[in-house]
Amino acid sequence: MSNPLPLGSTIGILGGGQLGRMLSVAAARLGFKTHIFEPGANPPAGHVADAVTTASYDDHGALLRFAKSCDVVTFEFENVPTAALDVIEAQVAIRPGREALRISQDRLTEKEFLQGLGLTVAPFADVPDAAAMQIAVDTIGAPAILKTRRFGYDGKGQARLRSADDAEQAVADMQGAPAVLEGFVEFSHEVSVIAARSPEGDVACFDPGENVHRDGILHSTTVPAKLSASQRMDAVLMAANILNALDYVGVLGVELFVTSQGLVVNEIAPRVHNSGHWTQNGCTVDQFEQHIRAITGWPLGDGSRHADVVMENLIGDDMDRVPELMKERDCALHLYGKSDTKPGRKMGHVNRIQRG
Amino acid sequence: MSNPLPLGSTIGILGGGQLGRMLSVAAARLGFKTHIFEPGANPPAGHVADAVTTASYDDHGALLRFAKSCDVVTFEFENVPTAALDVIEAQVAIRPGREALRISQDRLTEKEFLQGLGLTVAPFADVPDAAAMQIAVDTIGAPAILKTRRFGYDGKGQARLRSADDAEQAVADMQGAPAVLEGFVEFSHEVSVIAARSPEGDVACFDPGENVHRDGILHSTTVPAKLSASQRMDAVLMAANILNALDYVGVLGVELFVTSQGLVVNEIAPRVHNSGHWTQNGCTVDQFEQHIRAITGWPLGDGSRHADVVMENLIGDDMDRVPELMKERDCALHLYGKSDTKPGRKMGHVNRIQRG
Repeated sequence: MSNPLPLGSTIGILGGGQLGRMLSVAAARLGFKTHIFEPGANPPAGHVADAVTTASYDDHGALLRFAKSCDVVTFEFENVPTAALDVIEAQVAIRPGREALRISQDRLTEKEFLQGLGLTVAPFADVPDAAAMQIAVDTIGAPAILKTRRFGYDGKGQARLRSADDAEQAVADMQGAPAVLEGFVEFSHEVSVIAARSPEGDVACFDPGENVHRDGILHSTTVPAKLSASQRMDAVLMAANILNALDYVGVLGVELFVTSQGLVVNEIAPRVHNSGHWTQNGCTVDQFEQHIRAITGWPLGDGSRHADVVMENLIGDDMDRVPELMKERDCALHLYGKSDTKPGRKMGHVNRIQRG
Repeated sequence: MSNPLPLGSTIGILGGGQLGRMLSVAAARLGFKTHIFEPGANPPAGHVADAVTTASYDDHGALLRFAKSCDVVTFEFENVPTAALDVIEAQVAIRPGREALRISQDRLTEKEFLQGLGLTVAPFADVPDAAAMQIAVDTIGAPAILKTRRFGYDGKGQARLRSADDAEQAVADMQGAPAVLEGFVEFSHEVSVIAARSPEGDVACFDPGENVHRDGILHSTTVPAKLSASQRMDAVLMAANILNALDYVGVLGVELFVTSQGLVVNEIAPRVHNSGHWTQNGCTVDQFEQHIRAITGWPLGDGSRHADVVMENLIGDDMDRVPELMKERDCALHLYGKSDTKPGRKMGHVNRIQRG
């Protein structure tokens, strides 16, 4: 993709949730059309897309027709089945590429990849089966957390070990899935860097944000984050290191623990990221547009921060607060148009602009 | 509409151009769905809407089905045929209401309405036919401009009179349409106020912007405008006066000439307005969201300006500048996804954020 995709081209998006929705709006702002592929009915992204295919990732005929209608394909989540990607890639480029997906789809592979780059990650041990757990606990100690290697998100597929006594139950919770035992890291706070890379290798990073989680789900992101100048530089260099190693094209999120020994990589997400939503109201070009620019081969935009922002997720019953939020000064509301409110479900977010 | 429309309701939009497109995105941001009604194929708004009806305004069956699918209907242009509105209004509320449309669809009615509110307008005379032109020219003098009473926009349906000698040709240019002869007003510059009113009568105005036209089409809007504090207050009070007199619900644009004798109303537009596009990057709640809030009965939002902005339209071949604009710092690009570039056609705009 040495020339940028002509404006008016169609961008395929795998996944019709809120990330696909906000990508679709950003694509439209640059004059592109979008085609959403999503198994679930009435996807949030479908409300703001040019076309929607409702089909399973097993439906290779539907995938093929979808791929043929698109000039480039991207995704809003990293757990797209490999066979589906094979069908699509035979027709049209997938951005970011398969290598980033292969690595981030598997916690063990991801950690080994990051270590290979010289980055620090939490102590971890492979737990392919119940038999391996004892050695893992002996190595990592407790407290620790057991996580399935694949298909985990927002705290799902995880079991905490307060002590070694919890090992058996934790393994049972994995329901036979290969897992990784992670040791805890002593950290003061978590930050994330949302970074973009173009096909030519240009890299642009948004200001790191400081994340607060509740019940395993992101609660808020605050920019600027509490970081020294050197930590800030480290964070950005680490993100660039990861992007370059993957020959990455698009936006990637890197979660980092801030510790007394430096920054520790928690995880990476090869996509736009919840902790980058603040950019919608803090930057001229937000993470969604930056991703669209990268995957279509247009120049990365000006992602410099022009305002301090606190992003807060609206989860489940937080929707009851919408009438009050509507009246709040400097409060930008972003709702996802989901028809059912469920506990733990991300329904929207607010970006509060902080005036000096 | 004493209770706000539930989030997830469907907003019908008459007209599928760039204003409908940006209204649709704003509606989605608040969790609403949109249904676009547009006679032309491949409407820009259709790329970001939940549903699109492609049908003529004469197709009353299509209008009825459209109306039945919507919880409220609004429009992006004031020249919607009256019979079409009748069909829709039998099913569902139209916001803003019919009175605002009736008045703004006719230049003569509009000027008489504004005069009736005690506002100053340019000198004008009714020119129902060729016979009336001589009296009109005698009254108004020259230079002057002859405009069709109905269906004019962006300089169309207008003829300039440099002197009384041009009268005959100007009348011929109207092709038999009833017209209004307007005298010129000596003004230093033009500003516009984008104002919103809720069903309860709350009024909120965005900061006035200063407009520069080229070839009869808006070229740029700059905020803040060159206005004294008292002129600024006058402008806002005039807009509120108009909104209240119309019992208006939604966003309305008021164009004003700044003269040594005070502010003179040029025209009003009962809709979101090109000169309000700067609000997308200068305010937490932009004109499009403000309109959606008003017509759905949700509280008007915080439209205070947090940045100085210069909006510039991209017209026709200005699209050739997109590659350079993509690289410009502090430059937010908004393209409309129109497939054909034509001279004089609005293809997009940029909002340049002005840093201190």
